Amino acid sequence: MIEPKVLKGFRDSLPSQEIVRQNLISEIQNIFRSFGFVPIDTPCIEYSEVLLGKGGGETDKQMFRFQDNGNRDVSLRFDLTVPLARYVSANYAQLRFPFKRYHIGKVWRGEKPQKGRYREFLQCDFDIIGADNAQSDFEILLLIHTCLKTMNVGEFKVLVSHRGLLNNYLTKNSIPTGADAVLRAIDKLNKIGLDGVVEILKEEGLQDKDIEAVKSFIALPKKNFGETLSLLSDLLGSDSAEIIRLNELYQMMKDCNIDSDFVLDTSITRGLDYYTGIVYETVLEKMPQIGSICSGGRYNNLTGLYHRDSLPGVGSCIGLDRLLAALEETGSDITSNSRYADILILKTNGPSLSSAASVLRKEGLKVDCYCGDKGPGQQYAYAEANSIPYVVSAYENGLFTVKEIKTRKVLEGLSLSELVEKCR
Amino acid sequence: MIEPKVLKGFRDSLPSQEIVRQNLISEIQNIFRSFGFVPIDTPCIEYSEVLLGKGGGETDKQMFRFQDNGNRDVSLRFDLTVPLARYVSANYAQLRFPFKRYHIGKVWRGEKPQKGRYREFLQCDFDIIGADNAQSDFEILLLIHTCLKTMNVGEFKVLVSHRGLLNNYLTKNSIPTGADAVLRAIDKLNKIGLDGVVEILKEEGLQDKDIEAVKSFIALPKKNFGETLSLLSDLLGSDSAEIIRLNELYQMMKDCNIDSDFVLDTSITRGLDYYTGIVYETVLEKMPQIGSICSGGRYNNLTGLYHRDSLPGVGSCIGLDRLLAALEETGSDITSNSRYADILILKTNGPSLSSAASVLRKEGLKVDCYCGDKGPGQQYAYAEANSIPYVVSAYENGLFTVKEIKTRKVLEGLSLSELVEKCR
Repeated sequence: MIEPKVLKGFRDSLPSQEIVRQNLISEIQNIFRSFGFVPIDTPCIEYSEVLLGKGGGETDKQMFRFQDNGNRDVSLRFDLTVPLARYVSANYAQLRFPFKRYHIGKVWRGEKPQKGRYREFLQCDFDIIGADNAQSDFEILLLIHTCLKTMNVGEFKVLVSHRGLLNNYLTKNSIPTGADAVLRAIDKLNKIGLDGVVEILKEEGLQDKDIEAVKSFIALPKKNFGETLSLLSDLLGSDSAEIIRLNELYQMMKDCNIDSDFVLDTSITRGLDYYTGIVYETVLEKMPQIGSICSGGRYNNLTGLYHRDSLPGVGSCIGLDRLLAALEETGSDITSNSRYADILILKTNGPSLSSAASVLRKEGLKVDCYCGDKGPGQQYAYAEANSIPYVVSAYENGLFTVKEIKTRKVLEGLSLSELVEKCR
Repeated sequence: MIEPKVLKGFRDSLPSQEIVRQNLISEIQNIFRSFGFVPIDTPCIEYSEVLLGKGGGETDKQMFRFQDNGNRDVSLRFDLTVPLARYVSANYAQLRFPFKRYHIGKVWRGEKPQKGRYREFLQCDFDIIGADNAQSDFEILLLIHTCLKTMNVGEFKVLVSHRGLLNNYLTKNSIPTGADAVLRAIDKLNKIGLDGVVEILKEEGLQDKDIEAVKSFIALPKKNFGETLSLLSDLLGSDSAEIIRLNELYQMMKDCNIDSDFVLDTSITRGLDYYTGIVYETVLEKMPQIGSICSGGRYNNLTGLYHRDSLPGVGSCIGLDRLLAALEETGSDITSNSRYADILILKTNGPSLSSAASVLRKEGLKVDCYCGDKGPGQQYAYAEANSIPYVVSAYENGLFTVKEIKTRKVLEGLSLSELVEKCR
């Protein structure tokens, strides 16, 4: 016999988990579609050359890279961003810009497996390609906001910053060290604390007064988006590009009456070098330990590696596993409903119950007809184990005899509408 | 610059294709769930040893097999059946039988690419594991029937046979050659014709009278399930196991009033050796060239390689690409609706239209707000290219000004309900 084991860092999804995951994905897709975002798909395997791009990143070493049967150097995709860049370049003539796409698919990384980290996992990205203006920035922020509101994750804040703020600030304060180095230091704030950041800045050769300046920049008050924005406006000049952009965004937030869910937080940097405009992440007020569920930003050169036109873009991705963890905490409908079916039809030796199944399915109910060879006791146990709340044992003259698993009560003479009502 | 090419045999999915595919998958999932079938997921990469099983099949040579970074011998799955066997064995204690699962996922085969054949493609399997009786056989047949009816693929027939029929027939006629060899010959009937089959049977050493017997077996009339069944019953004895099973199935078909969509066709064998009971495929009356959309059968040893209990099963898979091709022929709603959104909100310099978007989304409509920098003419072209039928250019006092792209007519003063009505 062969041991039926899975590889380290990989996992099976049991029905109760997969039902919840599929429901969540379906909800998210509905929201994406309601905003005019459309799905795409790309191959899971691509030429290594295409996926490596410029190369040099941390992810390169983690790629599942091999020679295929035709001796081509190929790899499994490690994210959905590089494939997007390749896709937009390859299908440029067939796309209309701004191009709003979402993509939900598996990616692979040979990372060291640890709690909550897998070598194969689902990513869920959404981006707008081919526009650089406040409206497209706001569209992504609004979509993030709508997702979190619709999902009922509890109170949350979307923390927003802009890469240009720090650049501008460093120039204004004549701090000689490059913005990237300072930015990478600030990015570690949550992990290593303010003292750690200061330590790195010292190693980078910043003088004490410059370090103080950086400290006061990241410590700007974050109570209200508008207030922080006017502080920054005073500091950097109201005519600087990033202040103008943030002012436009703030106006749009107010128009939609959602400004109080946004925080302008200058300590948000998002590590990746390729962001060039706004950056953002989310925090759940009552579950900060879960971390950011939606993060992203604006990048102004998505396709440069593959196409003569270097298109700008803005986007985000949803951490599905984190979102699931949050929804389990809040007891959302999505995570609490993992019933295999609404109703089990008992297998009896009496008259056929198959017409009952068909009648109930027409009402939109999920109906499982028991098709094993066990007796009634085992069939009730089957319903319970599969979280099926009702068992139909008879159907005559349009009336159902139903056992409610939770209460163990038998209800006789239930009409179709009464049974449908119970199942909803 | 790097050429943004995809590997031979792989493909990008454009939004118009992916919207249709996702809609189709969602419909199919709803049907599966309405029958109490539940989704699972398994890793795309597994130990080669696990996927190879006994090995020796055609698929072995086609596997994408490589060493991972930890020097493990791993492969991409080439179907969803072997992973199911491994999954059921690994998660045996957590599953209740009969276990009804569906699984929609990508698989990889290094086949020679040709029209309609890809090296990466979606499979869609549904099976019942842990029961060997007429009811579970029928459940799969009913599910196939429901899928094809619901999808509106036009007239179809489900062709059914039973592996035991041929075994029994060969024994009854004292034909010495093994049933497997005869079965493999019959399986080629559609490809090489009756003469070709006869040729193979000769090579297998069958005598003329035995060949005549086989010919008359596969030529049994196929007009009506019940008639063919009673012919077979006379031929093989009404008390033989396969006749009893087929009689039970026929009774269930009649109970559901769907017997006229089924044909008992003794020339159906389904090549794979592991089928042990009923086998079936489908044929579209007006599009026979598309081939079978749903095929499968009963196998009585799914898990033997990985588990001490060798569970029986019965199942099928849907050929999504074939189904899509058929739906395009019939002009089904699913394939004809690839609109990116229902409505495009024009970007104007006038008062904000963002409240219009939010009002329309609450009605369940898909609303795209144009967020590029082009003028109105280009925005209408964008709507047309993305199959968006209506463009809203103004929203005041609860009334919309809307351009209908198809007719180029501008409709003024449309109420919310009127616009919603138009979009549906």
